[in-house]
Amino acid sequence: MRRVSIIGVGCTPFGKLNGRSIKDLALQACREALADAGIAPHQIEAFYLGNFAGGMLAQQELTAALVAGALGIGSVPSTKVEGACASGGIALRHGYMMVAAGYYDVVLVAGVEKMTQASTEEVTAALSAAADRQAEGSTGLTFPGFFAAMARRYLHEYGATLDHLAAVALKNRENAQRNPRAHFYGKPATFDEIRQSRLVADPLRLYDCSPISDGACAAVLAAGERASEFRGTPVDILGSGQATGSTTLQEMDDLCSLEAVVEAARQAYEQAGVGPEDIDVAEVHDCFSIAELIALEDLGLMPRGEAGPRTAAGETRVGGRVAVNPSGGLLSKGHPVGATGMAQVFEIVRQLRGDSDHQVPRARIGLTHNVGGTGGVAAVHILGAR
Amino acid sequence: MRRVSIIGVGCTPFGKLNGRSIKDLALQACREALADAGIAPHQIEAFYLGNFAGGMLAQQELTAALVAGALGIGSVPSTKVEGACASGGIALRHGYMMVAAGYYDVVLVAGVEKMTQASTEEVTAALSAAADRQAEGSTGLTFPGFFAAMARRYLHEYGATLDHLAAVALKNRENAQRNPRAHFYGKPATFDEIRQSRLVADPLRLYDCSPISDGACAAVLAAGERASEFRGTPVDILGSGQATGSTTLQEMDDLCSLEAVVEAARQAYEQAGVGPEDIDVAEVHDCFSIAELIALEDLGLMPRGEAGPRTAAGETRVGGRVAVNPSGGLLSKGHPVGATGMAQVFEIVRQLRGDSDHQVPRARIGLTHNVGGTGGVAAVHILGAR
Repeated sequence: MRRVSIIGVGCTPFGKLNGRSIKDLALQACREALADAGIAPHQIEAFYLGNFAGGMLAQQELTAALVAGALGIGSVPSTKVEGACASGGIALRHGYMMVAAGYYDVVLVAGVEKMTQASTEEVTAALSAAADRQAEGSTGLTFPGFFAAMARRYLHEYGATLDHLAAVALKNRENAQRNPRAHFYGKPATFDEIRQSRLVADPLRLYDCSPISDGACAAVLAAGERASEFRGTPVDILGSGQATGSTTLQEMDDLCSLEAVVEAARQAYEQAGVGPEDIDVAEVHDCFSIAELIALEDLGLMPRGEAGPRTAAGETRVGGRVAVNPSGGLLSKGHPVGATGMAQVFEIVRQLRGDSDHQVPRARIGLTHNVGGTGGVAAVHILGAR
Repeated sequence: MRRVSIIGVGCTPFGKLNGRSIKDLALQACREALADAGIAPHQIEAFYLGNFAGGMLAQQELTAALVAGALGIGSVPSTKVEGACASGGIALRHGYMMVAAGYYDVVLVAGVEKMTQASTEEVTAALSAAADRQAEGSTGLTFPGFFAAMARRYLHEYGATLDHLAAVALKNRENAQRNPRAHFYGKPATFDEIRQSRLVADPLRLYDCSPISDGACAAVLAAGERASEFRGTPVDILGSGQATGSTTLQEMDDLCSLEAVVEAARQAYEQAGVGPEDIDVAEVHDCFSIAELIALEDLGLMPRGEAGPRTAAGETRVGGRVAVNPSGGLLSKGHPVGATGMAQVFEIVRQLRGDSDHQVPRARIGLTHNVGGTGGVAAVHILGAR
C-alpha cells in the first residue's frame, strides 16, 4: 500500500448557522480545502462524504452526489458513508484506503451536518437513531442517559469525581477561546459555572454535554509520492483503524471501555509503528466529558482509572504531556455529527503543519478518535508531520 | 488488482413484511448468504451495508454496526453507504474494491429497506430526499413526476408509444410470476389492465411505477484465488463502474439519457473487456417503465430510440436476445430502496450459476444497473460465470 498524504484542509465555523443548507456548508468546507491544496475541482478523482442526519433533519439524502455536482468535480464516484457520530472518520478511512490501494491519486473527503434548524425534540429523536431502537432505544434512554450510566459506573469503579468531569469541560472550553471556528468561541466558562450548571442526566450537567451545532469540514488526500506537486505542507496518514463494537450498553462487558476504540486504536498504532507515548496531540470524541476520560484510557494515553486526576493536573492541556482537544473538542468546538470526524482531521493537520492559530508546541504526531453511538463503531487515525 | 468472486447470496421475499425490522430483514438475507457460501460469521473480514431511508422511515441509523453485531461477525469494520436507490450497488462496489485491493479476503455486502410500515405520505417525503430539495424538490415534483417528464420527452423524441411502456411493465410482471420472492408473485396482470390502470403522473400509470416494498439481499465476496475453498459455484465480478450525474432534471442536457449510467457502464465494460453484445442477462433499474427503456439504450444494449419497439417484439424476454429483469425488476419484484442493488446481484449470480428457479438459458455474462435519484449516481457491475 502506498503512503497517503493530506494536502489541504477546510472547515466552516461551527455553531448555529442560520439559512445555510447541508449543500452550502459542505461546499464551503470543500472549496476551502481545495484552495488550501491549490488544486482545481477537476483534479479530484473520487469524493467521500460523512453525514448522519441529513434525511431525518433536512430531508436530504443522495448528499454526496449533490455536493459533488455543485462543486463541479464531474462524473467521478461520490459516496456517502454513515456511521452515526463516526461518519466523518469512516469517510476519511475510505478516502485513505482508496488512495493507498492505488485506485485514485487525489480524493476529496468531507463531513457535514445541519442540525440547529430542527427543534430539540427532533434532534433528540434523530440522535436516538444511533442507538439500537428495538433493543435499547425502547427503554426511553437517550444519549445523555447512556453516557450518564457509563459515567456513574466509571466514578464508582475508579473513584473519579465530578470535579474530574468538570476539569475536562473546563479545559476544552478554555481551548475553544483560542479557536475562532469553535461554537463557544468568545463564551468562556468558569469551573464553578460548570460544576453548578443544570443537571441533564445525573451525574452529567449541561457543560458535560456537547451542543447541537451546524458545520462542515473537508480534506484533500493525495498519493504520498505526488504530494510535493501541490502547494503547502503535506501531512501523512500513518495509520488507520476502524472497528465495530456493541450497539447497546446491555451487551457491554465493561461500561468503562469501548471495545471498538481499543481495537481501532490497536490497528492504527500497529500500522503507524508508533505507540500512545509518541502522540503529541489528539482530538478525541468528547461527546460528553466522561467520553474523553474513557477515550484517554482506551487509546492508551493514560493508565486505567487515572484520566480524571491527570486531566485535573493539566496533563492534557496545550503545553501538557499530550494536548487533547486543542480545538475545544465536541464539548466546546461543537458537534455537527457528520462533520466531527473531519473536524478532528482539520485540527490535527493544522497542528502538525505548525500553522494553527492555537498551536501546540512541537507537535509531530497526532491522533483522531471518532466514535459512533455508544461505541458501535470507532475510527482512529494517526497522522504525522513530514 | 485481484480477481474477486461472489461465493454466496441470500435474499428475503420482497413485499409487505409486517413486524419485521431493518435488522431482522438484513439478518435473514445475510444468514442465507453465509449458508449459501458455507462459511461462518467469524470468517467475514468486513461488512458493507446499503440503506437509504432507515433514519427517515424507521428511526434507525448506525445500521451496519447493528446488523454486524446481531450477526456475530465480531469487531471487523462495518460501514453503511448511501446513494439513494443506488445504495446497494455502491455497497457491492466497495466490498469489491476492498477485496480486489487485497485489504480483505472475505467481505459480506448487504442492502436493506423497510418501508411499508410508513404511510404513503411518509414514504413519498422520504423518497423526495433523493432529489435536490433546494433546487428542484421545492417545485413540488416527486419521483413519479420526474420520470413522467422524462417519459414525455422520450415519447416525443423517439416516437415511442404508451404501448411500449406497457410492454415493459407486462414483461416484468410476467417474469415475476416465476419468482417466488417477487412482491407481485401470484398477481399477474394483463396488457389491458396495465394500459387502463389509473394515471399516476401523465403518461405514467400505476403499473408503470414500482411499488413500496420491504426486503433485504446479501452476497459474500471472496478473493478469486480463494473461491475454490468455499462451497458452491463462484461467480466473478468482471467489471465495476460508479459515476455521478446531475441531481436535477433542469441541469440535464438530455432527458432521455442518464450521463452517470453511460459513464459507469463505460468503466464496467472496459474493465470487464466485454461489450453490450456479450451480455446474456441484465437486471436494470426499472423504478418506472420508462427507466428500463432509457437504461437499455444508455447501457448500449439497444440503439437509441429502439428500446420500445424491441421490448414489444420480445427481445428482452427470458429466451429473447438479452433477458432483462428476469426477476420481475423493480416494477414487479419490488423496490425496497437500499436492497434493490443487491437484489440485482442475487438474481444475476443465480442466473450465472444456473440454479435459478426461473433460469435464463445459457447465461454466461450478466449485468446489474443501479441508479440513485434521477441519475445523480449510478453503479454498474458485470458478472461472469466461470
